Amino acid sequence: MRIVQNHYGKSRVRVARLVRQKDRHDFHEMTIAIQLEGDFESSYTEGDNSRVLPTDTMKNTVYALAQDPAVTHPESFGLLLGRHFLDTQPQVTRARIELAEHVWQRHGRFSFTGGNAHRRIARISRMRDETAIEAGVEGFLLLKTAGSAFEGFLKDEYTTLRETRDRILATSLDAVWRYTGEDISWTTSWYGVIKLMTDTFAEHESKSIQHTLYAMGETVLAQCEHVAEIRLTMPNKHYLPVISNDVFCPTDEPHGLIEAVISR
Amino acid sequence: MRIVQNHYGKSRVRVARLVRQKDRHDFHEMTIAIQLEGDFESSYTEGDNSRVLPTDTMKNTVYALAQDPAVTHPESFGLLLGRHFLDTQPQVTRARIELAEHVWQRHGRFSFTGGNAHRRIARISRMRDETAIEAGVEGFLLLKTAGSAFEGFLKDEYTTLRETRDRILATSLDAVWRYTGEDISWTTSWYGVIKLMTDTFAEHESKSIQHTLYAMGETVLAQCEHVAEIRLTMPNKHYLPVISNDVFCPTDEPHGLIEAVISR
Amino acid sequence: MRIVQNHYGKSRVRVARLVRQKDRHDFHEMTIAIQLEGDFESSYTEGDNSRVLPTDTMKNTVYALAQDPAVTHPESFGLLLGRHFLDTQPQVTRARIELAEHVWQRHGRFSFTGGNAHRRIARISRMRDETAIEAGVEGFLLLKTAGSAFEGFLKDEYTTLRETRDRILATSLDAVWRYTGEDISWTTSWYGVIKLMTDTFAEHESKSIQHTLYAMGETVLAQCEHVAEIRLTMPNKHYLPVISNDVFCPTDEPHGLIEAVISR
Amino acid sequence: MRIVQNHYGKSRVRVARLVRQKDRHDFHEMTIAIQLEGDFESSYTEGDNSRVLPTDTMKNTVYALAQDPAVTHPESFGLLLGRHFLDTQPQVTRARIELAEHVWQRHGRFSFTGGNAHRRIARISRMRDETAIEAGVEGFLLLKTAGSAFEGFLKDEYTTLRETRDRILATSLDAVWRYTGEDISWTTSWYGVIKLMTDTFAEHESKSIQHTLYAMGETVLAQCEHVAEIRLTMPNKHYLPVISNDVFCPTDEPHGLIEAVISR
Repeated sequence: MRIVQNHYGKSRVRVARLVRQKDRHDFHEMTIAIQLEGDFESSYTEGDNSRVLPTDTMKNTVYALAQDPAVTHPESFGLLLGRHFLDTQPQVTRARIELAEHVWQRHGRFSFTGGNAHRRIARISRMRDETAIEAGVEGFLLLKTAGSAFEGFLKDEYTTLRETRDRILATSLDAVWRYTGEDISWTTSWYGVIKLMTDTFAEHESKSIQHTLYAMGETVLAQCEHVAEIRLTMPNKHYLPVISNDVFCPTDEPHGLIEAVISR
Repeated sequence: MRIVQNHYGKSRVRVARLVRQKDRHDFHEMTIAIQLEGDFESSYTEGDNSRVLPTDTMKNTVYALAQDPAVTHPESFGLLLGRHFLDTQPQVTRARIELAEHVWQRHGRFSFTGGNAHRRIARISRMRDETAIEAGVEGFLLLKTAGSAFEGFLKDEYTTLRETRDRILATSLDAVWRYTGEDISWTTSWYGVIKLMTDTFAEHESKSIQHTLYAMGETVLAQCEHVAEIRLTMPNKHYLPVISNDVFCPTDEPHGLIEAVISR
Repeated sequence: MRIVQNHYGKSRVRVARLVRQKDRHDFHEMTIAIQLEGDFESSYTEGDNSRVLPTDTMKNTVYALAQDPAVTHPESFGLLLGRHFLDTQPQVTRARIELAEHVWQRHGRFSFTGGNAHRRIARISRMRDETAIEAGVEGFLLLKTAGSAFEGFLKDEYTTLRETRDRILATSLDAVWRYTGEDISWTTSWYGVIKLMTDTFAEHESKSIQHTLYAMGETVLAQCEHVAEIRLTMPNKHYLPVISNDVFCPTDEPHGLIEAVISR
Repeated sequence: MRIVQNHYGKSRVRVARLVRQKDRHDFHEMTIAIQLEGDFESSYTEGDNSRVLPTDTMKNTVYALAQDPAVTHPESFGLLLGRHFLDTQPQVTRARIELAEHVWQRHGRFSFTGGNAHRRIARISRMRDETAIEAGVEGFLLLKTAGSAFEGFLKDEYTTLRETRDRILATSLDAVWRYTGEDISWTTSWYGVIKLMTDTFAEHESKSIQHTLYAMGETVLAQCEHVAEIRLTMPNKHYLPVISNDVFCPTDEPHGLIEAVISR
């Protein structure tokens, strides 16, 4: 018997950082998961904890490093955390850091509202000789009421769906894109990618979710030279017409699920 | 043995209505619960269904009436639904309709994003000679990083909390207010009450959640003559200081919970 | 302006108690909410915290009192907590304690599995001269595949539902019953009521959810002399027949919702 | 630009099957996700739907095939569904079927209770020349109050955790194991693996979650010759001691997370 894969870490570490500017406060809140890979086999096979950094220490490390200005972007904070574990733990060969930012909206100089259901995401995978940096979004709701058809599809004995040239198209977008380097304006770039995807979704003459998904990914790769690859996951959140294409029943289950990775 | 209370209905009826204007589309999405009270005892005691309108019919009724322009405000759609059940079902003495609107944000002429985590609420309680109309909000996140203290509280043998003049104050506001009549501009009024509560939360020199809650309710009653009463429910979503009042651990459980009803 | 109702407290206080017997361990885990009513108006109107026991202290009180043997039943632990707040806080007029027990199943002498989705509930409302004790269950799933009809119901222009003599009946039972006194074997009694409800659900020739709900409540009141009143809340979790009454589509939304309170 | 990966399908397809025996009913309920891979690029790049079987048809296929006796085990039903899509759709190169069974407990001949929070899982990955069959469990809660230590771990500047020889160990087990073939008694085998894992968790003298995880996987591989590989994912659901190792605070976040794949 052998361990063909193993990693361990701390999940759902929540941290908030308050930055006191002279005339206003900035506020950042994230939930973080850390996973370490490396020379840990004896902890499994023999209960030898001598190379095991407790996951409680990982949590404390998040708090300590949150004092660093890197905390203001999930990408840079993830890079900082990943470097820390590789630098201080020789037995670690890879550190993966996943960060989900809850973006608060500024309301006043010292006050915020927290309306967004979606989360801004960053995923850092750091090895001694290689670093992968991904940014993304989870649960971004998009809906359009024109410019969406679904026709000419394959039929078999179980097919009952009717072709349509005019349907509501709605999704809860998950997208993760990989950057080519580290010298990037993280937050500007993030909002840029989101705007490209949102605008393309709105303007595309859609023949299917697949068709729109590809158009969104293609636009991001065409416009953002620092994006090397993008994965889009788009559920088809069906709005079933009930009365004459005016009244619909929104449904969560079942739902279509379309996923593709587009690369240069 | 006797039935001292009974009601029945349909919950989680989801409906969306698309309104096609010449140069743009409007889109409204709600989740609705209906409960009817009346002369239904024999259905419980004898299985006599002769006065029982199926809950499936209530669902169909929501779809049918969603063609009416009243659907564009949850308050007016709830009033329409309540009147329908009282007008057509003589055995019904009270119809209660609860509506939660998922507010889509306009992105383009035919496209929307759905970012808000909170829900706009309306609750209609309709009897033949009396109607109560409530509007509200569920899950509206508010946070401030200055102007919040908690001092001078009672201590006993189990008290370990320290007094503070400077803490983060955060809540997920639930508020429901009762209107004095039906001749009200529902959506304008809703945004007005939300703005008064949000601004008061931000500007108030808070001595406690209780203190701020009252200030918010007082402002709404002082500024909105058509609001007769307001119930505010405010969890204290603790942000525990971890490092020198700069780094915090946000927590969901346990949480304080403060509730009050303020009336004229 | 006046405060017509107010209360405050701590919610989602989680506590577990390990009881070390000679040859085995017992383990109890609960989530508790505390709400206090009393002379607290000045905390709202003036920010006067001098009569406000911090909710953090309530949490510490739960931990401290969890050392008492009363913790082994949610009813007795709720009574202990309620008495404590009334005894030590003269400004409190009523203490409400809600307890939800996560029941662990014994697997070995020192080990457990935690499979139940439902929760055992107790609700204590304690005033200086009066105490109400309720027990109950939340989310108890019941399903039967025979002995359930729904016929002879009222039809209107929107009715499309077909009558049926043979349908699947499924619910997620919430039930809360009020006891007549405090001298009761809490856990034996709880399992007794659950068994009466489960058996009645299974054996009843059901003409509707209403009909079965009443039969369940009637049986509990007839068999348990220490139960004064019972509230049953039963969603109709529809299993829509898809192919010849053999294959069904289970749905969560929309669902019927039936509620009644039955008393002596 | 190129599509480096793509698949599509239907998720959260819920289906229940009632099997009428002479003197009793059997009842099976599952939630199913289907994903197809194959020659679908032109649907993304050109909106060509001619090779796209609608996800709605996949849902109908689940209902139709649920009449087959294979539906009584998630593994055999997944195999049937996977074969169907490969047999009827030449453009499909791989069909992945994920099935989560909600196991109802028999209460009477025609009635059931549905208490389990965990789900029985099967995952089928079917290609024309190769099939992978995995079974598993999601969310199986395990807790022990003796025989668990965590000592001798690595410390750094941020470590504050104390060593302990006596702590509560709790997890919500996710496990997935791969079978060597198709000629297996699916349900007997599933309960066998669950019992081996549960018993090992209870009896193991644990030096860490890693140590116990490995012991559980090792036992399964040692006892079940038809299991080729097992992945165990075990969060460390911390029970923080509050008062003298008798009273604990259960927490959901943050939590440790340990994962390993063990193979022959």
